[in-house]
Amino acid sequence: MKTSEADLIRKLSGGASAPQPQSGVVLGIGDDAALFAPRRGYQTILTCDWFLEGTHFLRDKHPADSVGWKCLARAVSDVAAMGGEPRCFLLSLAIPGTYTGRWLNEFLGGLRRAARKFRCPLAGGDTTRRREIGINITAIGEVRSGWATLRSGARAGDIIFVSGRLGEAELGLRLLRSTDRVNKRFKKKDGVLKKDLYPEPRVALGQWLAKHRLASAMMDLSDGLSADLPRLCAASGVGARIEAAKIPAVRATAQRGAKPFNALNLALDGGDDYELLFTVRPRKARSLPRVFQGIPLTAIGRITSTRSLRLIQLSGREEPLRAGGWDPFRT
Amino acid sequence: MKTSEADLIRKLSGGASAPQPQSGVVLGIGDDAALFAPRRGYQTILTCDWFLEGTHFLRDKHPADSVGWKCLARAVSDVAAMGGEPRCFLLSLAIPGTYTGRWLNEFLGGLRRAARKFRCPLAGGDTTRRREIGINITAIGEVRSGWATLRSGARAGDIIFVSGRLGEAELGLRLLRSTDRVNKRFKKKDGVLKKDLYPEPRVALGQWLAKHRLASAMMDLSDGLSADLPRLCAASGVGARIEAAKIPAVRATAQRGAKPFNALNLALDGGDDYELLFTVRPRKARSLPRVFQGIPLTAIGRITSTRSLRLIQLSGREEPLRAGGWDPFRT
Repeated sequence: MKTSEADLIRKLSGGASAPQPQSGVVLGIGDDAALFAPRRGYQTILTCDWFLEGTHFLRDKHPADSVGWKCLARAVSDVAAMGGEPRCFLLSLAIPGTYTGRWLNEFLGGLRRAARKFRCPLAGGDTTRRREIGINITAIGEVRSGWATLRSGARAGDIIFVSGRLGEAELGLRLLRSTDRVNKRFKKKDGVLKKDLYPEPRVALGQWLAKHRLASAMMDLSDGLSADLPRLCAASGVGARIEAAKIPAVRATAQRGAKPFNALNLALDGGDDYELLFTVRPRKARSLPRVFQGIPLTAIGRITSTRSLRLIQLSGREEPLRAGGWDPFRT
Repeated sequence: MKTSEADLIRKLSGGASAPQPQSGVVLGIGDDAALFAPRRGYQTILTCDWFLEGTHFLRDKHPADSVGWKCLARAVSDVAAMGGEPRCFLLSLAIPGTYTGRWLNEFLGGLRRAARKFRCPLAGGDTTRRREIGINITAIGEVRSGWATLRSGARAGDIIFVSGRLGEAELGLRLLRSTDRVNKRFKKKDGVLKKDLYPEPRVALGQWLAKHRLASAMMDLSDGLSADLPRLCAASGVGARIEAAKIPAVRATAQRGAKPFNALNLALDGGDDYELLFTVRPRKARSLPRVFQGIPLTAIGRITSTRSLRLIQLSGREEPLRAGGWDPFRT
């Protein structure tokens, strides 16, 4: 297939609407770099995320449409975790020459739907040919100066919350691995599979928590609670005690077609949930609704002054919380 | 080798000095995202660049130190091409588990020297394990609102300039390919090899041209003059006529150890020069020095109103300019 880089860039920019002033992008694709006009009184949020075949998605299992959606969703989730608003993104795409046709069209379809949904248009990028599909997304967000919610603000006594249900994406991935081919009807019906294929970063929740100064610390759950909670605690110089009975785990009814699973293990160690993990001072916890725009907010434990991480099992026995979450350099 | 992602992140942030307020980075490595405080009256320049083994560098030929330097230099060159000032960067790094020792240390050595040289500190990033080395750099720069110099401003009659000498990096790469091992003494002495290993983006020149409104259009030369000049012309809706006799090509004295080469072909088609290509209105061309901070600025032709790209050969014969430069999707 004879696709020049210029053709590819035309394809990338073609479907994207012209830079909209409200996104801050004053110069988009086609020059040496993009130009962004920051708003006065705001800080810029900068984050980048790998999305590589074999590591972050499976070429023969994940539809190209889902790859496009998810690569942006993950990066936007980091903006949400700071309490920020997504503004625009850069796409670095490395693909085989034979993937510049149908696969690319479907990929761009998913990417554009995500860009519209998250109000985060494509501002620029870089493309190259490569045997394996490699994607890198830089998301640019904004947050009012002083409003960003960091990982480092948790104090002993703070209540630990999570949004949504944990482990659903991991269960969805297992389901996907066990099927030969993704059936489109199945895909749309099954919430668990949707959580793996088309995750929705908690942008509105993150912004609301930051605006009302409700969260003392916050991060997104991308590698699993047992891997991510220790990171929040380390950044804050504290420990935590969480209760297995309180963790909003995958429901048994979500099992449909999957092999038997341990819901608690999935909730603790499953990656890719893109829910928010945040801490709230006890006196502020009362202001927190149980459900925010349809997403449950669940208290799962407390921040402690001792640096240890503890899990109260369903049996009532207290144990150390073992980090079983995903780490590309440990597995 | 058992290196966790946390260990790797410590290594990446360890040598970097704490975020300096003058760089605009108010929150660096370690949270979900970095926070950058834009300056009032400035626009933000956003650009990202792949740097992949096999495509952009050779694992067994390019020293890790050079890989670290060059990946940042390339991205900073795009900031320079807009007339901007580099402010900070994000690093996405995918490396084999066995490369987290000596190779990574040397890579970070080169990267940090480049970061100091370009005044562009590391603000954040993402790491993962991968069989092949993959790097993606997002560079963030700033330029006073309205000062950015785009590709699209060239008009018929404008004089076309290039900085430096063209084709040196390509010649350096050929030299590197033909040697078994890079001799450190050789490396430091040879300007041609240095141009491939440790390119210096023309940041000061780009800013000076933008500040004094001297360039009507500008871009950096990364894929070779014959590939990049058509891009500038297409963006401006113009054509160009350049003269082979005027192009500042590699000098024969730079040949040392290399096989015979055609200097003009190298200058036209050689990639990775990271010099600036810019156009100047005739009445402003007189204000331009012949040399800026030791870098020659050479007029090589004129912008034309007809859309064609023409090359006046050394023989005086005029021919179409054939794009022989580097395109990852055409080769």
